Amino acid sequence: MADLYHPETRAIQLVDVLGALGHPVRMEIIRALADGEERFCGEILPAEPKSSLTHHWRALREAGVIHQRRAGRKFYITLRRADLDTRFPGLLDLTFAEPTGFDKPDSK
Amino acid sequence: MADLYHPETRAIQLVDVLGALGHPVRMEIIRALADGEERFCGEILPAEPKSSLTHHWRALREAGVIHQRRAGRKFYITLRRADLDTRFPGLLDLTFAEPTGFDKPDSK
Repeated sequence: MADLYHPETRAIQLVDVLGALGHPVRMEIIRALADGEERFCGEILPAEPKSSLTHHWRALREAGVIHQRRAGRKFYITLRRADLDTRFPGLLDLTFAEPTGFDKPDSK
Repeated sequence: MADLYHPETRAIQLVDVLGALGHPVRMEIIRALADGEERFCGEILPAEPKSSLTHHWRALREAGVIHQRRAGRKFYITLRRADLDTRFPGLLDLTFAEPTGFDKPDSK
């Protein structure tokens, strides 16, 4: 089984990170991981369909936002907070300070 | 002809802005507008196909990133820098400090 691709810290690109974060479900995912703890993928947004989450894990992982560890048929997920803070200081702080796309005002 | 939709400043959502910025062509567009001057849409990335740019103007406008002014059959574009700096302080500074997706290292 192929290893999961994770970009090196220096290869993480802002445009990829912004594209990965710029989706309401992925915003919810990174909020669930904000404390830096590793979590079993099934614990994160359990109400979201598994096929949708599989797509989002990959988008976040390939952009360098999360680390995904395989253990048998399970995945464990961590936010790459230190790597992102190194590459783009302030971006995660700014992101966590904002309400998510799920809280859009009706005015929009 | 319908007015172009522009979200009010307070209705601009981070998830939408990140999704709008998280694309290499749109990163190039906002860099071309970074000085805050209004530009004729045909001046910005003249090598990019018009149909592609039309899609990107809309994505950026609906997210609250640019203002698009119609003058006859032409459009004039401005970065909503003050609005974005008010809503998400530091985001544009951080974005302009980074190389674009067009400069990805071969290592990725």
